[in-house]
Amino acid sequence: MDKKTGKPTPAEPEPEVSIYESLIATRPKEPPTRRAFLTGATSLFGAAAVHVLLAPFLGHAANASGDPTRVPGALATEYGRRSPFERAKRLTKPQRSRTPLQDLHGIVTPSALHFERHHNGVPLIDPAKHRLLVHGLVERPLLFTIAELKRFPSTSRLLFVECSGNSGKEWKGPKGKTAQEIHGLTSTSEWAGVRLSTVLAEAGLTPGATWMLAEGSDAAAMTRSLPLDRVLDEALLCYAQNGEPLRPEQGYPLRLLVPGFEGNTCIKWLRRLKLVSSPVMTREETSKYTDLMTDGTARQFTFDMEAKSVITVPSGGQRLKKTGYVEIRGLAWSGRGRVEKVEVSVDGGKNWRTARLQAPILPKCHTRFCLDWRWDGGEAVLQSRCIDETGYRQPTRKELVEIRGTNSYYHYNAIQSWQIDEEGNVRNVQV
Amino acid sequence: MDKKTGKPTPAEPEPEVSIYESLIATRPKEPPTRRAFLTGATSLFGAAAVHVLLAPFLGHAANASGDPTRVPGALATEYGRRSPFERAKRLTKPQRSRTPLQDLHGIVTPSALHFERHHNGVPLIDPAKHRLLVHGLVERPLLFTIAELKRFPSTSRLLFVECSGNSGKEWKGPKGKTAQEIHGLTSTSEWAGVRLSTVLAEAGLTPGATWMLAEGSDAAAMTRSLPLDRVLDEALLCYAQNGEPLRPEQGYPLRLLVPGFEGNTCIKWLRRLKLVSSPVMTREETSKYTDLMTDGTARQFTFDMEAKSVITVPSGGQRLKKTGYVEIRGLAWSGRGRVEKVEVSVDGGKNWRTARLQAPILPKCHTRFCLDWRWDGGEAVLQSRCIDETGYRQPTRKELVEIRGTNSYYHYNAIQSWQIDEEGNVRNVQV
Repeated sequence: MDKKTGKPTPAEPEPEVSIYESLIATRPKEPPTRRAFLTGATSLFGAAAVHVLLAPFLGHAANASGDPTRVPGALATEYGRRSPFERAKRLTKPQRSRTPLQDLHGIVTPSALHFERHHNGVPLIDPAKHRLLVHGLVERPLLFTIAELKRFPSTSRLLFVECSGNSGKEWKGPKGKTAQEIHGLTSTSEWAGVRLSTVLAEAGLTPGATWMLAEGSDAAAMTRSLPLDRVLDEALLCYAQNGEPLRPEQGYPLRLLVPGFEGNTCIKWLRRLKLVSSPVMTREETSKYTDLMTDGTARQFTFDMEAKSVITVPSGGQRLKKTGYVEIRGLAWSGRGRVEKVEVSVDGGKNWRTARLQAPILPKCHTRFCLDWRWDGGEAVLQSRCIDETGYRQPTRKELVEIRGTNSYYHYNAIQSWQIDEEGNVRNVQV
Repeated sequence: MDKKTGKPTPAEPEPEVSIYESLIATRPKEPPTRRAFLTGATSLFGAAAVHVLLAPFLGHAANASGDPTRVPGALATEYGRRSPFERAKRLTKPQRSRTPLQDLHGIVTPSALHFERHHNGVPLIDPAKHRLLVHGLVERPLLFTIAELKRFPSTSRLLFVECSGNSGKEWKGPKGKTAQEIHGLTSTSEWAGVRLSTVLAEAGLTPGATWMLAEGSDAAAMTRSLPLDRVLDEALLCYAQNGEPLRPEQGYPLRLLVPGFEGNTCIKWLRRLKLVSSPVMTREETSKYTDLMTDGTARQFTFDMEAKSVITVPSGGQRLKKTGYVEIRGLAWSGRGRVEKVEVSVDGGKNWRTARLQAPILPKCHTRFCLDWRWDGGEAVLQSRCIDETGYRQPTRKELVEIRGTNSYYHYNAIQSWQIDEEGNVRNVQV
């Protein structure tokens, strides 16, 4: 009987560790884990690298192969790190890196794995010295410190950002191998800052101010023109991402974020907004980030990232080890609003089933989808297609190419096909 | 005229850098930034620490005080780090650390700053060797690898976790100084894993299975009993947090997460679930985590974290530098469901205004609130109170103490009062 509550104490005392240990001891030898055969992550462990990564656990390292209840663990830390056993990483080139979509869960991308794209490196900026200039067709040109911007009414939103070059090599055929390699230039964060409209209201727009030039303070001085009527309602001047200040590669200390627009319009290291009466025709909207059509004309200012989706498990480079239950998992998104529905096919598009959508389902944000499947050991072609709240349906490759040809590099959003062979190997195909 | 589109090129060429630089040059000398005077963070920069933190930018460090457009920036990285200029940190004791709530934006807590609480350190666990045992009143005792658990149907939710000892010292008076010190044992993440109900269905419950013992594999072998009828619908066996695997201090590689329940029931480093017919009366539910009432009895199994809120800006230890506009910002949450409304008073509870709630507003998750205020330079007492979807209203300290007395350490959810003096200093008071 418990003295304080009068509730009965349990009849059976708990021989806790011994039960656990005796059952563990009788467990048959394990087959290789799924993680190991899907990603090959285990083989990446070099002895030297592990030594460095175990540093936070020094004094406890001897315990890694033993019973963790037998030795006191590591103490609290000021700023945490991931487990030394976890090694998911961005796939890097000098000016870009791709999110390992196949390794992620839910919808939030950890900031350390958010894709990056820069045009002349990530600048090192002292936030106390950074300024935002607002000028041009305004009543009062203004210069803001970051601290001043943080005083304005704030807001936050979970939003995806996608590079318009994401999946760009697929225009020429099934070039990429993995979900990360093909589609890893999209990520989701909770972005926080001040509304563009709030800051422009301080400056006061003058008649004729219909476009806005945004300029970054990186070594490329990245610049884009944006139509005010499209961006004023939703665009944010962000100083935070996933709770803390922006990461350097995401534009620290200030970034323009235009929900649903191609990533390069979300100018990082933002230092200048100039209100103008027409697009400025910067390099990034004339020679770059335009879409060459079959008739020789080029689409310019293709801002909206259309509905898209990708199955991340199983996906290219993975292998199904045995027949039976598989949860098909993926991400869907649309720059036009909410994901309304995701449909999945396991026979290359002949038949479609509706996937479960995981809450929260937010506009212009990654949405997680899942579908139960039973792999019978035969060949299969897995596809997913996103239908957004405007009714737009993600096109097949054939439908996309009919309209756009194959001269483009940007804005490829055709259905991804993953072929599974009889040995369970998953590879990128175009059907 | 643009060759491809036929659209006009702009009349005015852009002398971009020179405009920016000439305007910057005429800018009056800055007052100290808000960040500096609010948190004193600047003074923490020691030269040696900065040197280490600048490592990713080596070769670019010389540029920190100059114009970042003049030198190529740092290249892409596999796993990102925050800016060396940002230093927010958890406030640590050996077995706990507190989230710097006053430094955060939105609702997501970055995993590196999620509060931690452990009872004998953070174990180092090799996920390939970790097992979950399910036994007791089940048809089939089962032992799972992490890889096997990841094969089950998955789910994810944005949820807060709060230690029931959060704000515990406030029972004895206004002891803490800052929002972090007083309320920093609560954080929000997107948690992902498999539903408890899915795993228990595999094992098959036998009649009489009404409670469940959950046990961790830390050196405290942390154990709690949970009533199945309260947890079966919502509890998760989590292997991921904010997209990537759980952080070590959050229970890597597996954690029980019971939405809305006190944090210590969310057993970390989870290795065993035993189905039983009554509570097991572990140390953590007899001597600890009970609430001593004024009549000498103790409340036991006080699982639900009641509605609560805290203003994070302005908050204790900060200073308002000048009169005029201030955005009051804070977080509200309830273990019973959604936040319905947050009300804010600036006169110690005489008058209340309804705060703006920032989307998304999710059940059992932090909700961000904001309210516009104009500080007239006089004394003020700021308070917030959370009303949840059950109609429960966060109590005043007087209301709470009338029912609970002051013998408790756990489950303190009274309204927080921040007093602002005529110099703008903010401090913790109880009114």
